[in-house]
Amino acid sequence: MCEANAYLLKGGKEELVLESVDRIVPQEDGLLLEDIFGKKKILRARIKEMALVDHKILLEEIK
Amino acid sequence: MCEANAYLLKGGKEELVLESVDRIVPQEDGLLLEDIFGKKKILRARIKEMALVDHKILLEEIK
Repeated sequence: MCEANAYLLKGGKEELVLESVDRIVPQEDGLLLEDIFGKKKILRARIKEMALVDHKILLEEIK
Repeated sequence: MCEANAYLLKGGKEELVLESVDRIVPQEDGLLLEDIFGKKKILRARIKEMALVDHKILLEEIK
C-alpha cells in the first residue's frame, strides 16, 4: 500500500498527526486528511513537503 | 514503489504533467515536483486533491 504518514512541524519538531494517509484535500484554510480506514482529520496546516517514496508528508501550521 | 502521477486540471480535463512523482514541495507561487529519477518540474499550480493509494495527484492552475 502506498499511504504515507503525516507529521506536523511544531517548534522545530515533527509530531505524527495521522498514519496511513490516503487522501489529502486542501481546504479554504487548512487540509483534510483521510487515512486508508476512512478516518478523517482537518488541520489548520499546509503542506511543507511530501516525499512519497519515503511515505512522508510534512505539514506546517498556518498562523 | 510509491510514487504517483501528477495531472493538471485544464478546462475540465486531466492532463498528465509528470509521472512517478516522488517529492512535492510547495513554492511561493507554485509547486516543485520531482520524479523518482530526479527530474524536476515547477508548475504554477496548487494541489487540488491527492489519492496516494490510487497513485494520483490532481493539480489545478493558479490564475
